Amino acid sequence: MMTVPQICAYLNEQEDILILCHQSPDGDTLGSGFGLYYALRALGKRAQVVCSDPIPPQFSYLLPEEMPQITPRCIVAVDVADPQLLGDKLSCLADKVDLCIDHHPSNRGYAARTLVRPDAAATAEVMAEIIRGLQVRLDQRMADCIYTGLCTDTGCFQYSNVTSYTLRIAADMMDLGADAYHINRKMFGTKSKARIAMEREVLDSLIYAMDGRVAVIAVTKEMLDRTGAKESELDGLSSIPREIEGVKVGITLREKPGGFKISVRTVEEIDAANICALFGGGGHARAAGCFIPETLERCREKVIDAAKAACKEAGF
Amino acid sequence: MMTVPQICAYLNEQEDILILCHQSPDGDTLGSGFGLYYALRALGKRAQVVCSDPIPPQFSYLLPEEMPQITPRCIVAVDVADPQLLGDKLSCLADKVDLCIDHHPSNRGYAARTLVRPDAAATAEVMAEIIRGLQVRLDQRMADCIYTGLCTDTGCFQYSNVTSYTLRIAADMMDLGADAYHINRKMFGTKSKARIAMEREVLDSLIYAMDGRVAVIAVTKEMLDRTGAKESELDGLSSIPREIEGVKVGITLREKPGGFKISVRTVEEIDAANICALFGGGGHARAAGCFIPETLERCREKVIDAAKAACKEAGF
Repeated sequence: MMTVPQICAYLNEQEDILILCHQSPDGDTLGSGFGLYYALRALGKRAQVVCSDPIPPQFSYLLPEEMPQITPRCIVAVDVADPQLLGDKLSCLADKVDLCIDHHPSNRGYAARTLVRPDAAATAEVMAEIIRGLQVRLDQRMADCIYTGLCTDTGCFQYSNVTSYTLRIAADMMDLGADAYHINRKMFGTKSKARIAMEREVLDSLIYAMDGRVAVIAVTKEMLDRTGAKESELDGLSSIPREIEGVKVGITLREKPGGFKISVRTVEEIDAANICALFGGGGHARAAGCFIPETLERCREKVIDAAKAACKEAGF
Repeated sequence: MMTVPQICAYLNEQEDILILCHQSPDGDTLGSGFGLYYALRALGKRAQVVCSDPIPPQFSYLLPEEMPQITPRCIVAVDVADPQLLGDKLSCLADKVDLCIDHHPSNRGYAARTLVRPDAAATAEVMAEIIRGLQVRLDQRMADCIYTGLCTDTGCFQYSNVTSYTLRIAADMMDLGADAYHINRKMFGTKSKARIAMEREVLDSLIYAMDGRVAVIAVTKEMLDRTGAKESELDGLSSIPREIEGVKVGITLREKPGGFKISVRTVEEIDAANICALFGGGGHARAAGCFIPETLERCREKVIDAAKAACKEAGF
């Protein structure tokens, strides 16, 4: 594990740096990636940010006017816990990552150099420190990037990962000109018509178990076809079940080729990663995932049974 | 207008202080009120917080174990912009308020002494300064109070009223032990099962007109009967239509005896009050209301027609 000064010293020596974001990009991987991009550019270095998936239009304000292709001599992954999350188009780079900057405790340590800060609310929180360590003047664009990472990974400073340090970094970014209000509106205050249609479908699919202690929603291919919702329009849907009063385990089933991707969110007393480990998955204590190669009904049954057992064990 | 040091000097000289919150109490009036209460208690003074309406159960963590009734010798209103907002039970005190601490620019200046900070995101932001000025050690309970005021009045640091100062005060409160995560969960992260059922019903009722520029939802008596949702569980539903991408006029029809209460939300270019004026209503430029004594279908037709005309006039 490297320290911030070591990372900064390392980056200072590199040229032609390719920055990898994870697939299905969110505000943290993009904010951290482009934050680093602008900082490296300010140091006079060539850099490029790449992602297997297209960048959703709501993040267009993060992008530079132009970003010429480079022949990379150094590869940095940001917010990518597992090389599998690089996605198909970048999977060929999985064993060539020179540096990984992340905050997921589940980081697989696949890179030659790694900085993981599991106590950071977002990779952007770590990136702010790195940019400062690079002695780059943090400008408004970098501040927008960092703020975007912070607010998206914390549900606008709502989740349990937020510390006073997170809030102070966000405050610093506002002082540096981050357009917090408009970023928040883009991230949280506007929903596409397809997203609204998906919310309706998802609420129609809602099922309770164990007297309302377990809540399950489903996102099927059929729903996606019907609503025209894209991958990026599904963000946050999986937090719906756990937000319901009295629910201890919130479960989202998401149809994938050959089965269902399961997302489990829990209250403090229950370990989501333990539930998912039963099906070969893992993650954080409050949010974890796994894949079950079965039909919707069978998946639902299996994961509800596991959730019930976890509730009972926790005394609910 | 008084300064914080003047307010602190004044409060230091007072005994038996009655603290008034506004009716339909929210996190800011309660957080500011109880924050001040605990600070005055820490100074060895008797105090009492009162409100015309019962305190909603989600705020119970703000309350002291017991709060004996006092015979007031000083009356302080917190977050009460207009004496009418004191509500029926406290209206007799409207012209007896010795001190008002507030952040609403519309404050009527009805108190003998007033501190209004229109640039503060919440009255709690001002209250944090006052408690510090009183040289009271801010403890965990006061920090919970201040954090509650900050997060509720800013939609968890999402609105345009948030400054870096707001975030830093929130960070300070976390350092003092404010249980930010659980407060946020109570305020934003939890929805009752009836509320979730209502959201489903409301999304089922969603209708678009004029190629998606107008969106209409309905809340009927039948839905309320079916879901068991209470009045207080409908908060914020009427902002759903306007949050949809591309919608210029968002309309909510709410069944009432003899017809429908109409709530209209608009984008900048369209005046909601003008639309509602056609039906004898009024309000603000972005949010207005009226009543139409007709069936759901007829109400919907009439208000959609009015919204279409307004869109056309605005060039949409």
